[in-house]
Amino acid sequence: MLNTINHGHVRELQLAKAPVNALNTELVELLTKSVRDAQTECGAIVLSGREGMFSAGLDVVELMQLDRDGMTIFWAAFFELLETVACSSIPVAAAVTGHSPAGGAVLFMFCDYRVMSRGDYLTGLNETRVGLIIPPVLQNAMARLVGPRVAEQMLVAGAMIGPEDAKKTGFVDALESGYEATIQHAVQWCENLLSLPQHSMLGNRANARAHFKEEFASHTAVNVESFVDTWFSDETQQVIGSLVAQLKSKK
Amino acid sequence: MLNTINHGHVRELQLAKAPVNALNTELVELLTKSVRDAQTECGAIVLSGREGMFSAGLDVVELMQLDRDGMTIFWAAFFELLETVACSSIPVAAAVTGHSPAGGAVLFMFCDYRVMSRGDYLTGLNETRVGLIIPPVLQNAMARLVGPRVAEQMLVAGAMIGPEDAKKTGFVDALESGYEATIQHAVQWCENLLSLPQHSMLGNRANARAHFKEEFASHTAVNVESFVDTWFSDETQQVIGSLVAQLKSKK
Amino acid sequence: MLNTINHGHVRELQLAKAPVNALNTELVELLTKSVRDAQTECGAIVLSGREGMFSAGLDVVELMQLDRDGMTIFWAAFFELLETVACSSIPVAAAVTGHSPAGGAVLFMFCDYRVMSRGDYLTGLNETRVGLIIPPVLQNAMARLVGPRVAEQMLVAGAMIGPEDAKKTGFVDALESGYEATIQHAVQWCENLLSLPQHSMLGNRANARAHFKEEFASHTAVNVESFVDTWFSDETQQVIGSLVAQLKSKK
Repeated sequence: MLNTINHGHVRELQLAKAPVNALNTELVELLTKSVRDAQTECGAIVLSGREGMFSAGLDVVELMQLDRDGMTIFWAAFFELLETVACSSIPVAAAVTGHSPAGGAVLFMFCDYRVMSRGDYLTGLNETRVGLIIPPVLQNAMARLVGPRVAEQMLVAGAMIGPEDAKKTGFVDALESGYEATIQHAVQWCENLLSLPQHSMLGNRANARAHFKEEFASHTAVNVESFVDTWFSDETQQVIGSLVAQLKSKK
Repeated sequence: MLNTINHGHVRELQLAKAPVNALNTELVELLTKSVRDAQTECGAIVLSGREGMFSAGLDVVELMQLDRDGMTIFWAAFFELLETVACSSIPVAAAVTGHSPAGGAVLFMFCDYRVMSRGDYLTGLNETRVGLIIPPVLQNAMARLVGPRVAEQMLVAGAMIGPEDAKKTGFVDALESGYEATIQHAVQWCENLLSLPQHSMLGNRANARAHFKEEFASHTAVNVESFVDTWFSDETQQVIGSLVAQLKSKK
Repeated sequence: MLNTINHGHVRELQLAKAPVNALNTELVELLTKSVRDAQTECGAIVLSGREGMFSAGLDVVELMQLDRDGMTIFWAAFFELLETVACSSIPVAAAVTGHSPAGGAVLFMFCDYRVMSRGDYLTGLNETRVGLIIPPVLQNAMARLVGPRVAEQMLVAGAMIGPEDAKKTGFVDALESGYEATIQHAVQWCENLLSLPQHSMLGNRANARAHFKEEFASHTAVNVESFVDTWFSDETQQVIGSLVAQLKSKK
């Protein structure tokens, strides 16, 4: 479900949940624990996926079977993962090795740096298209990357974009050709930071990201409840239901 | 003064006040009412102008004849229009069909999306050049589009730019060649949003624009009074007086 | 140490402290006084350096000899200079005539406009590399120029960039070839602003920069103390000590 590969002081956490690295409660909790462990055991983290697929986002097929308590547990766990990544005491780079829609993109938005593989891959926050409303802390994280104007337009339309547009807008920071090169780029980005005086690198980093701590602290509870409310609304259940039926018929 | 043209569920509100769509109290109040009505009668709004002229901005010739009470009514009405557009419950696109200086640009800044006609047209917030000081809520709206660095430099200099620069800086989102194509682009942009699940499109949109409501609520009264004070200052009356004399001699 | 050259109503304050315009308490206090005087004596200010060197930043060789009281005086003076530039009542342009690392870049970040000379020059906030942690008010000023994403990545890595990248990211606003052309460009930028109605140019400028006043007012004391703490930490003393040894061996 999650492979751990150490590259010297850089730890790669490789999503490996067949077939599309869909995020369920188990994987989310494992990721949170692994990011936390890495902070005491190594100098920097790379989150990666499999070739062609970083993460397809939330595991809607599984999540559709949960009741309100189950969904509340899932969303709380997902927000805890995002906060853990955003507020990590060590740098976190994302090697976006392929498609990364919705929850997959949400995950990499909170990393320090994103390198994406070139190819016919799509990424973006397409929640509008699946009937979901993105909480403000996620909207702000997207605006931080691409600016408020582009973030609003992409979010409202649920736009999905390819690597070139992702680079152009700032949604990702760099592109590489090929799976290994993408991971290698992310590892080297981490190694560069590890070659610098650590107290000042980490101190400047902590200042630059301090606002994440405040945002999660003040908004998580409201965001989780509001997200669960939307999930169980008739409109969203209908859209997600159609999506799940479509996914199942593809199998 | 204002033509209403329905394109399916998209309502075009076409400024049609000869000769240059200059904004006076009557047109401003009519626009506010029309934007409000559209929110209950259709799915999205396009604001457009005539070929070559979106709006020349405030009707300074008429406004110069108003006393302090009249000006206070005008500014309050203008802020109400901007707030109504910014906080509209449905998407609003601007088809910037030509020149759009000062108040014309202010109006489109609060829309969701801006497509401008290519050509020898100018847009920008040239208030500095006509002796006016732009209130913070308008400065923030400009910074939201082009970033705080470019917004400050354009505002302070009262810079006017053409379509290409407007696109490059993010002051407008897209360019089209020709009047019809510009309006068509704006209509299609709306139609795309109307093809999505409406509760999530509108929910994500409301979150992205929630800050406008707070800004207008806390600042409108102060902004109106401060704007009226500046209007009646000796320096501004002198600059505007010269401008009006120049406009009248052109006729 | 500082040459004053009047170009009509534009006053050039030219850093002239051999060999590299390094900032010590004396130069910083002189700059603050000169910027203040200019505000009552002329219409706009250009800060310039010598050919090939705007400012090498803090005079670490001299600062390393100061005790805690001396350093506190220096940092308080440096923050006072930055606040004086940021909150100047008249426009301040920077003619970045060459290299401008660390404190040199910090100084020009608070100006209204930056034109840099083309050439093999480097600029950037490389504080991470010399063991220093940049206070939030400086991080925010950088994010204002290049956006929060690029600012974080440049700051954390202590990245140094050339003129082309500085222009591309927005860290500077324009490039010129040659020393005289760089200064001339900055002077002309000021002259353009001085040709506009002054009450509205200055009023719009004051609104756009009002947030600087609030930021300095609420954060300066904490920032100074925190900066001095870092300066005297073992890690920073070691990194700066090596740097000073290296600088001395070059002489």
